[in-house]
Amino acid sequence: MKNFIIRSISGIAFTAIIILAILAGPLWYALLFFIIIAIMANEYLNLTIGSKKSVTKALAVTAALSLFTTSFLIEYSGISYRYLLLCMIPLFAIFITNLYSKEYNVHTFTKESRVNNGYEMFPFAIAAVIYTALPFSCCNLIIFDSEGNYSAYMLLFMFIVLWMNDVGAYCIGSAFGQKGDGKRGRLFPSISPKKSWAGFFGGLACCIIAAVTMSYIDIFEISTTKAIVLGIIICIFGVWGDLTESQLKRNFGVKDSGRIMPGHGGMLDRFDAALLAFPAVVIFSLLF
Amino acid sequence: MKNFIIRSISGIAFTAIIILAILAGPLWYALLFFIIIAIMANEYLNLTIGSKKSVTKALAVTAALSLFTTSFLIEYSGISYRYLLLCMIPLFAIFITNLYSKEYNVHTFTKESRVNNGYEMFPFAIAAVIYTALPFSCCNLIIFDSEGNYSAYMLLFMFIVLWMNDVGAYCIGSAFGQKGDGKRGRLFPSISPKKSWAGFFGGLACCIIAAVTMSYIDIFEISTTKAIVLGIIICIFGVWGDLTESQLKRNFGVKDSGRIMPGHGGMLDRFDAALLAFPAVVIFSLLF
Repeated sequence: MKNFIIRSISGIAFTAIIILAILAGPLWYALLFFIIIAIMANEYLNLTIGSKKSVTKALAVTAALSLFTTSFLIEYSGISYRYLLLCMIPLFAIFITNLYSKEYNVHTFTKESRVNNGYEMFPFAIAAVIYTALPFSCCNLIIFDSEGNYSAYMLLFMFIVLWMNDVGAYCIGSAFGQKGDGKRGRLFPSISPKKSWAGFFGGLACCIIAAVTMSYIDIFEISTTKAIVLGIIICIFGVWGDLTESQLKRNFGVKDSGRIMPGHGGMLDRFDAALLAFPAVVIFSLLF
Repeated sequence: MKNFIIRSISGIAFTAIIILAILAGPLWYALLFFIIIAIMANEYLNLTIGSKKSVTKALAVTAALSLFTTSFLIEYSGISYRYLLLCMIPLFAIFITNLYSKEYNVHTFTKESRVNNGYEMFPFAIAAVIYTALPFSCCNLIIFDSEGNYSAYMLLFMFIVLWMNDVGAYCIGSAFGQKGDGKRGRLFPSISPKKSWAGFFGGLACCIIAAVTMSYIDIFEISTTKAIVLGIIICIFGVWGDLTESQLKRNFGVKDSGRIMPGHGGMLDRFDAALLAFPAVVIFSLLF
């Protein structure tokens, strides 16, 4: 019960902060997501590379924040997209510092023994940037209209649908989902044994209802057809995003990505669905 | 001796193909580098993930080629930089297909045993894109001038300086470099035991001489000061690029990245220096 109250309070506070920052204006939005990306990138690196402080991790977080900041400034200040190149500096610096790291390059090189010398630091550092910073950098493309005016409502729409997916999945899954240890009715037993198909469809229904409702509210400026399509996209890619993060955690044998939110685990656990769902929405909006 | 002749012939043919394609025009240049990137990405994936065919590898090569093609079309046809987003589709598809791959997600999850379930496929696939496609995608930024006219000479300048680095390092290193097994006079004994400081400075001298010479040839349109700076950048980052690729190969216990060039190993072995040197030049040109 105490845990339930802590979970609820931190969940509501978190939701309120996001909504307020998005509504407050572009710089507040950018500041909040700057912090969120820094935390997520750090959690990802702690999971994959290890929790020890290292130059590689600092550079990877720098690269992630550079990507988000540059893509924001391209839309906000109209700087040339060529400045995206600057994000490559910390990325390639990882490569070079990796060479000089005393812990690596200590290997006995024979045809028989393949001794690991820390090269995988580089792929994980890059993955941290692509996985945690690229999705929200995409969001920068939809928060300004063609005249450069800030419009928070599309992002707000995406967050509300995403949260309603969780709500629907939890309610319907708890009420109608299969109980017990079997695989029957399970969405993806090998990665997430608790997710049921009933929960998935409950979430999908909730997403569509929320999306259609918002399409009737003028400020969102979205047609009902587009709202339904986006609702379905957010639901499906959100579930995939959730599963891919579970696969990551399972791979490294941890339950939560961090402990930043009381009762909720890490920041990555909170945004896992958004990390696939939001780019999917942005790409869909670009194409259609 | 026979090996020396094979090496020379394939080396000259390779050099000639690159020079001719760059001079022939933007589409020939793009076609050649499209092929080179495909081969390099494949070699990188074979090294890191393994040589078995897989959907992940196909998607990673697709992402690499999408990045190069999109960045080329932004400059060549003037399409919006927003189309870079499309490269994310194959990247995120890797994530999702990884979920459904039967080989993975087979794990016994206890606190004691951390059983690998193939998550690292994703970081290596992303690294393949960043490592092999991003450097040449950067080059797309310098082959068109502000009026959109194709200008091959800057890229040609970069290649010639890069090759002169190899020539200088080989000649001076063979003549004056330390012999034997000691670490004395070695540039980076833990990764590349054969490279000597004598060779490094020989390469640097050759780079500067070649750069200055080209600055006196009108078609290159480059000042002597800029030529010297770029010569130094190409030399230093070229050596780092060489070392980082050696570190990769050492990590996975292989000698050559592939067997595509008779006597020379793989495509990645040929372009390792360019992969760090060219982005460094492009970023320097952007900033100064």
